[in-house]
This record gives sequence, structure tokens and C-alpha cells, in this order.
Amino acid sequence: MNHIFQYKQLFNFTEQIFLKIGCSEKDATTAAKVLLSADVRGIDSHGVARLSGYVRLWEAQRINAKPNIQIIHETPSTATINADAGLGLVVAPYAMQTAIEKAKQVGTGWVAVQNSNHFGIAGYHAMMALEHDMIGIAMTNASALVAPTFSVEKILGTNPIAVAIPAKNQPAFVADFATTTAANGKLEILQRKNEDAPLGWVQDKEGNATTNAHALKSEGALLPLGSDKEHGSHKGYALGSIVDIFSAVLSGASYGPWAPPFPAYIAMLENMPGKGLGHFFGAMRIDAFRSANEFKKHIDNWIERFRNAKPAKGFDKVLIPGDPERECEIERMKNGIPLIQSVVNELQLLQEKFELNNLLQ
Amino acid sequence: MNHIFQYKQLFNFTEQIFLKIGCSEKDATTAAKVLLSADVRGIDSHGVARLSGYVRLWEAQRINAKPNIQIIHETPSTATINADAGLGLVVAPYAMQTAIEKAKQVGTGWVAVQNSNHFGIAGYHAMMALEHDMIGIAMTNASALVAPTFSVEKILGTNPIAVAIPAKNQPAFVADFATTTAANGKLEILQRKNEDAPLGWVQDKEGNATTNAHALKSEGALLPLGSDKEHGSHKGYALGSIVDIFSAVLSGASYGPWAPPFPAYIAMLENMPGKGLGHFFGAMRIDAFRSANEFKKHIDNWIERFRNAKPAKGFDKVLIPGDPERECEIERMKNGIPLIQSVVNELQLLQEKFELNNLLQ
Repeated sequence: MNHIFQYKQLFNFTEQIFLKIGCSEKDATTAAKVLLSADVRGIDSHGVARLSGYVRLWEAQRINAKPNIQIIHETPSTATINADAGLGLVVAPYAMQTAIEKAKQVGTGWVAVQNSNHFGIAGYHAMMALEHDMIGIAMTNASALVAPTFSVEKILGTNPIAVAIPAKNQPAFVADFATTTAANGKLEILQRKNEDAPLGWVQDKEGNATTNAHALKSEGALLPLGSDKEHGSHKGYALGSIVDIFSAVLSGASYGPWAPPFPAYIAMLENMPGKGLGHFFGAMRIDAFRSANEFKKHIDNWIERFRNAKPAKGFDKVLIPGDPERECEIERMKNGIPLIQSVVNELQLLQEKFELNNLLQ
Repeated sequence: MNHIFQYKQLFNFTEQIFLKIGCSEKDATTAAKVLLSADVRGIDSHGVARLSGYVRLWEAQRINAKPNIQIIHETPSTATINADAGLGLVVAPYAMQTAIEKAKQVGTGWVAVQNSNHFGIAGYHAMMALEHDMIGIAMTNASALVAPTFSVEKILGTNPIAVAIPAKNQPAFVADFATTTAANGKLEILQRKNEDAPLGWVQDKEGNATTNAHALKSEGALLPLGSDKEHGSHKGYALGSIVDIFSAVLSGASYGPWAPPFPAYIAMLENMPGKGLGHFFGAMRIDAFRSANEFKKHIDNWIERFRNAKPAKGFDKVLIPGDPERECEIERMKNGIPLIQSVVNELQLLQEKFELNNLLQ
């Protein structure tokens, strides 16, 4: 059964938790805003469902609630940031803002981040560029759950990419996707329901296609976008690798199999080649290429042409990247955010742990 | 039956053809080099097999052999180029070089190109960055052959992306892929052999999966990477759309269904929203983020870890993006380039047309 919570209620609760672990007021507000953006946009796996996970990382001293986030290297269009093991939810907006400032000066800004943690949904950060008439790009490496094409070893993350592109009268184009066939969050939903996964999402320990949604627990792996070689999985593998290299090798973070796992109970590997998790951000000022007004009129035209494309048999309409999340946001801001029982239970445990006086009642 | 030609022979022939249509010596050399790079790297669909196609575009006055390529807008890290309907094979190296020069100055360079034509393989242009210790990025929009997820209309190109990343002792990481499940060139091979395509490459005119390799001729379409919604085709569609927007909307070229088709006999649509085909290039100086030497050592480590990952049952080894093309290049530079009879026939027709004195004997 789902429990319905209003945005404001979950926001206040989340903010209080981040204050309790020692974040500044400003950081707690930012972190709550980023985390809740996943819940309202329907990416339930990346919202308050992860709040306990962040707290456990803090308890394991892998998250520093009072980080000294520093630019350690820069040029007019680039910066490298050491996040000092800060909350990714706070680090990422800081880094994206740095990219935006660089773009204001020289047309584009590109920021690589080392020594960070999970940053929530990539889309939130990319969308920060929109109000500046810029294209925003955000990506991150992540816990190694994915096997490269032809392999059985989990040495790559689900490594998402987000790209946000401003429009004029149409809503913005916002793509935000894991570079795997299916995000791990979707697999977790099937695991909870004890249902099978479609063929092409996971493989077993020998590398055979399997419908067993629990295969990752017995040495199976998630598959790169494309599922198998015949359907282009080498492209998904290349894409996930590019995200890993831009986010973690360019910044000096830990890459590939060494990416720090999100669950605090999983030990880090030895001989880490870099510091923490890595992210990569980009901001491109539209008017560094052409008139922003002209561009946005053409994006409206692009969106209208694609949205009005003739649907295939059995489908109503063609979607533009960002449509489902935006519709979900409107609905949930109005009617509330549904949480499953196990997430409510975890939040209530946090409430007791931090003596929050029944904030979730 | 395949005919084997030495690189030098095909290079000289191709260069002569480009001279005959009016290119300068420098441009003819560049165009031949880019075109032949596809043949030696095993991307047969993009090499001399297309030479007649370029000539037909020139005959249709859609390619200008003596273009006045101009930067029409710029900032320290960006430029927009009007290619004056020039050969993409010549325009793209010019634009990539512009990106590299920008990166030398301010850390990164980003160049959008309008009014261009097909630029050969994206990988060639991205790889130009490698010798400068930069990461190179190249993408282009293309003839509309792909239907977005949930649609039956062909309004998107196969829109490839290439990313080249320098290593120290290992060969460079070079990803170069169409954002569809399978490149159109692979489908054409099956059409010639009258063989079926794997399910997931194309759909029929109603949007149903089909194995009919000829489906595009009866209102079918190529499918975005991921094949269907359940396997992430909305991600491939988003990726192809991003390439279209970066290449064509940002530059002022014609986008989506209006992208000028490569076959000269296909009429252009009316009310074109921009000029010609569009490309987008990026160059990022490694030492704008961290020491290039440190980075390249870590890329070696990344490549070694992935190449030595445990193979799945039935496979020998895990490949690094660029491995197959590099191995093909070594083999073909030594043993020659195989061409199928129909391509040889087309080259011989060109030879007669331009009275090239049996250069292909």
C-alpha cells in the first residue's frame, strides 16, 4: 500500500535530517531540494528512498557534512573540483554553478569533480542551465553493477547522462537516462514484487540472458543499453565508459570497478586509483553559437514536429524527452508523493534516531 | 567476389576524382584521406563506396567544390561555421581544427557547423584531437531514416557520435557509433544478400518489429538504440535527438526530417528550417583538468582493467572501443582493401566519366 505525503512535509523532514547530520542550513536546503526533485519527477529510486543510505554513508564517515569544496585546477572554460567527500546533492549544484559562471565568461564551462558522493538525479543539475539560456549537461559514475559487452564482470556503473535544452514556448527538452537497458531502480521494483525481468536487462554469472530479476545477487550483471552485441550493447558500453572517464578519470576520482559503492556496508576495494565518486558538468551558452531567441524558436518547432509525428499502432502520441517527468511533477505537487511501506518505515526509523518529534505524522 | 586494392591506389584515385570536380589540391588530399580512413578502418559503407554519391551531389549542385568556409559567430571557447555547401570531408577537419585552436587558448573548444554535407566517419575528426593530448568529440545529423519511439515516421537520422580519448602506452579509446541499434550500412549488407535482419533493427510501416531487411523501402524505419521501449529505445531516441539539436539547431542547419538526404535523387523537403547538414565538434585539453601524463597513465590502467575483464562463456576477450577498427586498419594497410563488385563497377564508371586513364587497373 502506498502512503501519500505532501511535498512540503517530505521536504521539511529531509531538510531536518541533513541538518541533524551536521549540514549547514544552506546545504541542508539544497540537498533536500535535489533529493525531492527525484520524488516529484517520478524517479522514486533516487529520492527519499535513498535518505537512509546517505545517513549510513555519513555514519561510515564516507560523507563529510561540512566539506571544504575547492577548485584545484582551472582554465577560462574549465575547472576541476575536489569535493572533500561532501554530499553529492550539495557538490553537484556548486559545480554546475561553476560551469555556468565559466560559460558566462567564455561561452562554455566544463567542470570535473573528484572526491564526491551520489548526486541524486542528473537531470536536476543539467536543468540549472535552462534559466540562463544555456544547454546543461550532467553525468556521474556510479557503483559497478554493469558488465561490458562480452564480459561477466561488473566493472562499470549505470553512469547516467542528462542533457537539458531550453525552448521558447514549449517546455524544455530534458533527457536523463542511465546508459544501461534498464536502470537498477526498475530492477529493484521487480525484485520487491518477485516478478521476472524482460530478457535483455540482466545476465547470469556465465553471461547468458536471464529473466531472473535477482541475478545480480548471484554474480549476474546489469546490461549496457542495447542488451547484446547484435542489438548494439557495445554502444551502451562505450557510452557508459565515456561517462566513467569524463567523470572520474578526468577529475581524479575512482573509476570503473573502483567506484565507491552507494551501500555503506559494501567495503571499498583496495588500491583505489582516485578519490571518491566523480561527476562531469557542462554549460553552453546558446548565444555563444547563435541568437538564443532564434534557437529557442527552432527548438519549439523541433518539439512540435516530433510530438505531432504519426504514432505507431497502439500508441497515443510521441513523447519528447522530459515529458513524463514533467507531467509527474505537476501531478505530485498537486496530489502528493506516494511512498511504499518499506520507505515509510525507513523514514520513521530516521525520525526516531534523530528525535524529530513526529515530523512525519 | 571481393577485389583487393592497395591503400595508395584507392587514395590516388579518390584524390583525382575530387580534383576533377574542382577541389583545390589541399582539399582533394584532405577529402581522400578522410574518405579512405573509413575503408581502412572497416567502415565500408562510409568509404569509397560513397564516392559516386558525393559526385552526384556535386552534379546536383548541392556540393560546392570551392567553398568559402567562414566563422560567422564566436566566443573564446566556441565558433559557428557556415560551410558554404562544401564537402563535409573537408569542412569537418577545418571545424575540428578550429575547436582544437580554441582549446589551446581557453581549455576547451566547441564548434557548430551549418550548410555542410556528409562528413565521412565521425571517428576520423574526433581522433584529430589525440596528438594534442585532447579529448575529441564529433557528431553530425544525417538523412532521416529513424522513427522515434512510439512513432512510424522517419524524422531522425542515424546521427553518430564519436569520442576519442588519448592513452599513454595503450592505443587510444575511440568510440564511434550510430545512435541506432544497427547502422544503415549493416542493413544494406543484408539487403544485398537478401537475408533477414535480426528483430529489433527495423520496424514496418505500422511500427511492428520485423525481420524484413527491405522494410525501409515500404515505409518502415530504422530503430533507435535500444530497439523498443522495454529495452530503452527512448534513450537511443533521446541520444539521436541531442546529436540533431547540437549539430543542426545550434548551428542553424536543417534538422530532423528536413536534414538533406545523402542520395542526390531524393528531393529536399520544402520550407527547410536551416542551411544544409549540421555537425558539432568538441576538443577538451586534458591539462585543463589535470596533468595529461597522470591522466594518460590512468587511461592505460582503465583500458588494461577492462581488456582483462573475465570474458563471458563463448567469448575470447573484452574489447575496448576502437579495437576492431584499429586491428582492421593494420591488416588492410598491409594486405589491401577488399571492395565488392558493385563498388568496383561504380568506381570504374567514375574513371570513365572523368577520363582517368585506367588509374584503377
